[in-house]
Amino acid sequence: MPQGQPSVTPVDGLTTRQRRNRPLLLVHTGEMKGKSTSAFGLALRGWNQGWSIGVFQFVKSAKWKVGEETAFRALGRVHEETGEGGPVEWHKMGEGWSWSRKAGSDEDHAAAALEGWREISRRLAAEQHGLYVLDEFTYPLKWGWIDVDEVVSTLVDRPGHQHVVITGRNAPDKLVQVADLVVEMTKVKHPMDAGQKGQKGIEW
Amino acid sequence: MPQGQPSVTPVDGLTTRQRRNRPLLLVHTGEMKGKSTSAFGLALRGWNQGWSIGVFQFVKSAKWKVGEETAFRALGRVHEETGEGGPVEWHKMGEGWSWSRKAGSDEDHAAAALEGWREISRRLAAEQHGLYVLDEFTYPLKWGWIDVDEVVSTLVDRPGHQHVVITGRNAPDKLVQVADLVVEMTKVKHPMDAGQKGQKGIEW
Repeated sequence: MPQGQPSVTPVDGLTTRQRRNRPLLLVHTGEMKGKSTSAFGLALRGWNQGWSIGVFQFVKSAKWKVGEETAFRALGRVHEETGEGGPVEWHKMGEGWSWSRKAGSDEDHAAAALEGWREISRRLAAEQHGLYVLDEFTYPLKWGWIDVDEVVSTLVDRPGHQHVVITGRNAPDKLVQVADLVVEMTKVKHPMDAGQKGQKGIEW
Repeated sequence: MPQGQPSVTPVDGLTTRQRRNRPLLLVHTGEMKGKSTSAFGLALRGWNQGWSIGVFQFVKSAKWKVGEETAFRALGRVHEETGEGGPVEWHKMGEGWSWSRKAGSDEDHAAAALEGWREISRRLAAEQHGLYVLDEFTYPLKWGWIDVDEVVSTLVDRPGHQHVVITGRNAPDKLVQVADLVVEMTKVKHPMDAGQKGQKGIEW
């Protein structure tokens, strides 16, 4: 697969190298499941580059554990033991954020979501990760738990070279406007239409 | 994320469990890059289930190596050393298929592609893998190097419980018709539109 050629040459005063290495804000939205799957696939590439990977899942249930989590934790151990790839951190809202002292009761999802964003915001300021996966992050935005304007300005003004991938349906327009890449996963055909439920290894 | 509920209840004589565990044929198509990335994300879940993962990349250049390959080879070693996850095989057409005695000169891409399909066909008959990723497989189909009807009948009649994911643009209609799930990656916005070239860790 070719690396692709830009369709226009911008007049932004940057060299090709500067432009190429610009940190990206990616949004995976649309009705289909591939949003998170594709974000984790991207994180695999980042891991291979030796980037520090930070995953933040804005999911409600502590029980929810995707196969990717186990695989990335294994890759994090590979890095610790051999130096190959990059370090991996995986945090979930549903079980109480791991940096928080609060237990995972989480009756107040809005407060938990906001706490997650505050931590991400601190990490962005500290340039802690090379790639941030904010999984299902559009929902707390949609529900008004986290202020979209604050998120947009924090992301736009983030220092250094930090890539950010945000997944979830109904990405807010303001977020889409500042994103460098937006992919929409569109359903053409799905087994649930034919009455089949999700199955392990495929849906989670 | 809920596991989802089917929108209709089929009258196919299968129990819910039988239907749920049906092996799936997935097609990732459309104009955007997420096709392969998403397929490898799916393979992460399969690895976590302990499935044998077989990746077959129908790419022309031997030099092309995606970050996912390094990560999956690391996961394959994790499996060998700890028993966690499943075994991983990663084969590329461009460097000469690893099971083949031929060197990787491959002036004849059509013959190499067909050889790849013959091997996949043998493995499907032998029920060798739990998940097959046929990456960029739509191209040899489109170019007539591999017979679409043969592929469709082999896939439809495959024995046991083997999942297959096929990626690439312009998936043939006959393939889409027999697929259980088809996802189309649609471009909403892409940095190359703004004159930015691809960068490592993101595009490869």
